[in-house]
Amino acid sequence: MKKKGILYGVGVGPGDPELMTLKAVRIIRESDVLLLPSPVKEECRAFRIACEACREAAQKPVKCFSFPMTTRKEERDRQLDLIYEQISALLEEGLNAAFLTIGDPSIYSTFCYMADRARSYGDEVRMVSGITSFTASAARLCLPLSKAGEEIHIIPSESDYAGALRLSGTRIFMKSKKKGRELKELLSSGFSGNADVFCVENCGMEGERIYRGISELPEDDAYMRVAIIRSEEPACADV
Amino acid sequence: MKKKGILYGVGVGPGDPELMTLKAVRIIRESDVLLLPSPVKEECRAFRIACEACREAAQKPVKCFSFPMTTRKEERDRQLDLIYEQISALLEEGLNAAFLTIGDPSIYSTFCYMADRARSYGDEVRMVSGITSFTASAARLCLPLSKAGEEIHIIPSESDYAGALRLSGTRIFMKSKKKGRELKELLSSGFSGNADVFCVENCGMEGERIYRGISELPEDDAYMRVAIIRSEEPACADV
Repeated sequence: MKKKGILYGVGVGPGDPELMTLKAVRIIRESDVLLLPSPVKEECRAFRIACEACREAAQKPVKCFSFPMTTRKEERDRQLDLIYEQISALLEEGLNAAFLTIGDPSIYSTFCYMADRARSYGDEVRMVSGITSFTASAARLCLPLSKAGEEIHIIPSESDYAGALRLSGTRIFMKSKKKGRELKELLSSGFSGNADVFCVENCGMEGERIYRGISELPEDDAYMRVAIIRSEEPACADV
Repeated sequence: MKKKGILYGVGVGPGDPELMTLKAVRIIRESDVLLLPSPVKEECRAFRIACEACREAAQKPVKCFSFPMTTRKEERDRQLDLIYEQISALLEEGLNAAFLTIGDPSIYSTFCYMADRARSYGDEVRMVSGITSFTASAARLCLPLSKAGEEIHIIPSESDYAGALRLSGTRIFMKSKKKGRELKELLSSGFSGNADVFCVENCGMEGERIYRGISELPEDDAYMRVAIIRSEEPACADV
């Protein structure tokens, strides 16, 4: 019996190909097939990043998948099951497969839904960490996200923003989608007191933009945008 | 006048040298001097990681610094000022300096205190992201930290643990120091309901250990330990 392949979830980082890890490059190089969360490879951002950091990526066989956009759980689960069936068939053939994902595979990545299914199929699955968009944004701003004693809260667009702004330390608003206006209004009306406000769009990529302060905060929609609201804790002064 | 050097805060990741980024390796290679947050280079974990990923690191001139352990703000600030004076003198000589730090330089890193001072000196300072211990731990466990709609909260040992456990989504307890027992007691007494409980010690390094479930959770002290308490949100089922 042929040995089954391994499924790797490989984080390629937020955009700058140099932010890929040595391990991500090696796993891509050693894989038999690349799995892309995009209907066509030319449109796959993660694939473009990988190809820039690792020439071999462009020569690898790829398999593209259209991930469901529906919010209806049953239909979405059915579509995810169908995608995983195709992936599992590749592993059955003995192929090692690298599923490329922007940022880190454990944080808001479609890979999580594949890893769940891999486990229930009994397929071998591993994750390779990637630099997340929020640490890359902090680096771009040369901003500490947390000094000793400070908390960090990572908030998706589905959360209650007012509640999140009441938390202490650094609040990071990921993929804020259509809630840029809400965030700006909350901050303008005094939520978070005199916290420092930053926003990074397309970090490390073409079209990178940096916004500082509430007044610059954009209200429109953008996929690759991270807002960082940081209150330095007086408590941490004595830590 | 000689051109001043640049200060880089370089994250070397949590332990596995392969988790260093291509950029971290390049910056170390191109630097004139490595700055180590340790009294002697042989004891510096970040330096050991860098040397394994990048042979040139071992040949570079290094400068070691003893960071203050005191919690008295005034004394600590004075010592940090003295350290930064030495770093600034190196930049004045035109040397590019790479300050190595475990994990990511924006998250609980001594580098943050140096970056603050660099700015007030008008020195040029940049950060190079590193893989954080918590994403590496998630990868080791092959665990999603957040699916769509879920929050992540990063909690230092100075925080109120009971309050943190009331937050939704994934709670990550960093460097839990002497509070392992408190965390275990809180979880045992039903805080967090039936959340999944994991703990990773020395992730990717010699002496790596993984603990699963409340009963396995260690109560003693360890420097490199991350506890992950994860409640999958029913809310996210329909996202």
